[in-house]
Amino acid sequence: MHAPLPVIVQGLGPIGRLIAEAALADPFLEVVGAVEIRPELAGRPLSDFVDGAPEVAVRPTLAEAVADSGSAGGIVLHCTGSYLDRVAPQIEEALRQGLHVVSTCEELTFAEARHAEIAATLDRLARGAQRTVVATGVNPGFLMDALPASLASISHSIRSVVVRRVQDPSRRRTPFQQKVGMDLSPEEWEERRAAGGFGHVGLTESARLLAAALGWTLVDWQHEMVPCRAERQDLVTGTLETLEGSTSDGRTVRLHFEANAAVAEEYDEIVVDGTPPLTLRFEGGVFGDDATVAAVLRAARVIPNTRRGLATVLDLPLR
Amino acid sequence: MHAPLPVIVQGLGPIGRLIAEAALADPFLEVVGAVEIRPELAGRPLSDFVDGAPEVAVRPTLAEAVADSGSAGGIVLHCTGSYLDRVAPQIEEALRQGLHVVSTCEELTFAEARHAEIAATLDRLARGAQRTVVATGVNPGFLMDALPASLASISHSIRSVVVRRVQDPSRRRTPFQQKVGMDLSPEEWEERRAAGGFGHVGLTESARLLAAALGWTLVDWQHEMVPCRAERQDLVTGTLETLEGSTSDGRTVRLHFEANAAVAEEYDEIVVDGTPPLTLRFEGGVFGDDATVAAVLRAARVIPNTRRGLATVLDLPLR
Repeated sequence: MHAPLPVIVQGLGPIGRLIAEAALADPFLEVVGAVEIRPELAGRPLSDFVDGAPEVAVRPTLAEAVADSGSAGGIVLHCTGSYLDRVAPQIEEALRQGLHVVSTCEELTFAEARHAEIAATLDRLARGAQRTVVATGVNPGFLMDALPASLASISHSIRSVVVRRVQDPSRRRTPFQQKVGMDLSPEEWEERRAAGGFGHVGLTESARLLAAALGWTLVDWQHEMVPCRAERQDLVTGTLETLEGSTSDGRTVRLHFEANAAVAEEYDEIVVDGTPPLTLRFEGGVFGDDATVAAVLRAARVIPNTRRGLATVLDLPLR
Repeated sequence: MHAPLPVIVQGLGPIGRLIAEAALADPFLEVVGAVEIRPELAGRPLSDFVDGAPEVAVRPTLAEAVADSGSAGGIVLHCTGSYLDRVAPQIEEALRQGLHVVSTCEELTFAEARHAEIAATLDRLARGAQRTVVATGVNPGFLMDALPASLASISHSIRSVVVRRVQDPSRRRTPFQQKVGMDLSPEEWEERRAAGGFGHVGLTESARLLAAALGWTLVDWQHEMVPCRAERQDLVTGTLETLEGSTSDGRTVRLHFEANAAVAEEYDEIVVDGTPPLTLRFEGGVFGDDATVAAVLRAARVIPNTRRGLATVLDLPLR
């Protein structure tokens, strides 16, 4: 077995802490540092937040964490935000420090979709530093992009790919319930929607990733967001968001993201209309937080075998 | 769009013909030649076997097909047999001709499992020629190896992976029914088994591929093959073959391959016991011939982005 890869965890929110905890148990990785900008966390030992953590202090900057670790190279497990324009300076700093980056930033999963200039800059910097930058997670990063792309490798002459992720927010944390408008009145839901308060970050990125894997150019887009309602209930039970992209000759990618407390069951489903037709279903769905943690650790593990530059989950090998 | 990649189809059995037909419809590939050793086929136009084929003659040797095509480089879609010791000379010849190889040879999906010396030779020749050799298909090549490996990227701390492929041979071609002993008496089944007449080629390769992706070393192996029986029926309804490999600390990979005319439904299922737990099921199963054809075309499409040498499906990127 090779020596474990040194990793620094940046961002100690709920997902970052789970990542640190799981990385500690991963024989292929070694946690050598942690970064958190919030002043009430910086300076404290990592073991205050993560059981069994090594004797390292949480640092307010990556440079300090790198200096502490004494390791040349390594990987930042970066989980500080969903929006690329806000986190891009952190990614650039990691490259300056000579580190690979595995990020949970949703918009970074296919950066060119919304931020072509930032994508070009990160790609140039990463190539120059001979490092890899990639973002992953369960969604975007797997269920609506890498996994249907993988399925599409055993079906040819594909006419459409439909992915449905159906979750019951009443079984999730309160912030998720709020994010999908559960228990709002229809009027409140409408106000929040108008204010840009809802919406899954990553649907566009997933559709673009999947299209890239299929070799398709999607030219016609339809995006919808509607409140979910249950019979004899006044309040909204959640939100259904759909994104459909079509090629000029009518082939389609359709992503259906439903977080609805009125659903009878949770599931994830992928339907490929091709030769052969494929219908795949995860019974009970996929628990997102743990799956995102796993996706980050796995990407870190295969970084040495991944191409340099700004990569995507489509570039990650399976070992 | 890039220019289509030139491909030569080698082996015009049932799968080879399906591959040629599907390659003709693939905008990313261009069929420039065909090879078939059987004298009754060699010399005839490819269009005799495949509707809409270009005006090329089927040649008895690869060298002649390459000379015909006038294309420098390109890819052989190789489908002449399951056993590596028999087809290795053909792979070597393709490398001498400067071609990449995408093969359906089951033993080549993880050549080092049974043929370490041949694997080392092919790897050396392929690296020397700066070409890629890879074998794929639905099984081995996807359902029991690449797909569970992909799933394992969203679950950590994995304790076991179980894959079940359950097919009804009465809905398949006669050769498949014979291969799994359908409608034999129990005594006939036993005789055939003793003579080495049954058995899916590729279970070992799939288990080894999956273990490689998991980073596991399987040290303890259990292999079983039993006849399937139905109530009140004298004849065997098929064969159940299982292969289980365990690590020294008890983590397991279990592959269950059942071809049984008495099953109520066909399905493929993968169960990952990890964090999070995952249960995935293909309703109605996956039709193998078409899926293998698609897997070959997809591997050909991504060969330019795959590492050189003897590769596996774990090395294939998603685009």
